[in-house]
Amino acid sequence: MEATMTRLTDERLHELYTGTLKLIAERGFDNVTMDQIAEATKSSKATLYRQWGSKAALFADSLTAGGPVPDVAPDTGSLRGDLREMFGAHPKEIEHPPELVGAVLQAMKQNDEVATAVRTKIMDPLHERIALLIARAVERGEVAADCPAIEYVHLVLMAPFVLLDAVDGCDPQENDYVLNYIDALVLPALGIH
Amino acid sequence: MEATMTRLTDERLHELYTGTLKLIAERGFDNVTMDQIAEATKSSKATLYRQWGSKAALFADSLTAGGPVPDVAPDTGSLRGDLREMFGAHPKEIEHPPELVGAVLQAMKQNDEVATAVRTKIMDPLHERIALLIARAVERGEVAADCPAIEYVHLVLMAPFVLLDAVDGCDPQENDYVLNYIDALVLPALGIH
Repeated sequence: MEATMTRLTDERLHELYTGTLKLIAERGFDNVTMDQIAEATKSSKATLYRQWGSKAALFADSLTAGGPVPDVAPDTGSLRGDLREMFGAHPKEIEHPPELVGAVLQAMKQNDEVATAVRTKIMDPLHERIALLIARAVERGEVAADCPAIEYVHLVLMAPFVLLDAVDGCDPQENDYVLNYIDALVLPALGIH
Repeated sequence: MEATMTRLTDERLHELYTGTLKLIAERGFDNVTMDQIAEATKSSKATLYRQWGSKAALFADSLTAGGPVPDVAPDTGSLRGDLREMFGAHPKEIEHPPELVGAVLQAMKQNDEVATAVRTKIMDPLHERIALLIARAVERGEVAADCPAIEYVHLVLMAPFVLLDAVDGCDPQENDYVLNYIDALVLPALGIH
């Protein structure tokens, strides 16, 4: 029974994750304490530690909640279709503050637990999904098995989400930016024209 | 005479820039005060304000000192040669701490003066140099004038420097990563094989 009693509702989790991301995005991972997160989210530090064990684990779960990474890789029958499905606009369950990307990169260098969590929960699964789409495209004969760009596609697909705002002040999900980027750059690099 | 007297030596500037980058990388732009920078670099806040006027201006000059952006675009006769020259390993005059990339992205969202300075002093000049290399490659007939990837090349060339460490834990200047990336992905996207 105790496990049931301490389980947090989805609504409560949503508030906790949103509050955690907001604080860390604005102030930086190292500058935010569990006390401050507890206060900002109207929870107790004991609850936070019981549920997550560490600030790094809470931050990692906040980042992956509502997930930037789809559970299943799409399978539309073409690499173009799969990439459009995977990287096109999706409704966000948890609001990501504008400072978050920088705060995540900084936190990964400040804290090994954060770095490991972000890699294993976000970047590696994303890389695996992309590798699966590419493997299917190779099987279908769309992409050559020895195409040298394959090794770099995951980095290139993440780039607009991390960089575009800083470089050009744009949102990659607006005006079909990512879809155009896939057509103009990613597919041609893989030999698909 | 007064202008001469207040001019800082190159060595002093180097210390100031290095100290500023270290503090802001570790703590975040918003969490560092001019007082702390003055103390850490054994200078006076009055000197810092007289020379730079603001923390944002000091940060921007620290970032561009010793320059991530070359003054002149290379002109080797081929796009491959130009990109290898421009993005291959160069000795760094100012040490960039590992947390700096994240701190810069975060600071650009926290402070408009930083965002404008980083765009006008780093990203726009880099974009211009790359556009010049591409324009020459188009003139030489290496790249089609209407190649749709041209619009995205600057983003793609910056990506390893911002993302690779976070995604794969690697340094883009080691093991010829960037040179291989140019050959395997950037040039094929532009139709050069």
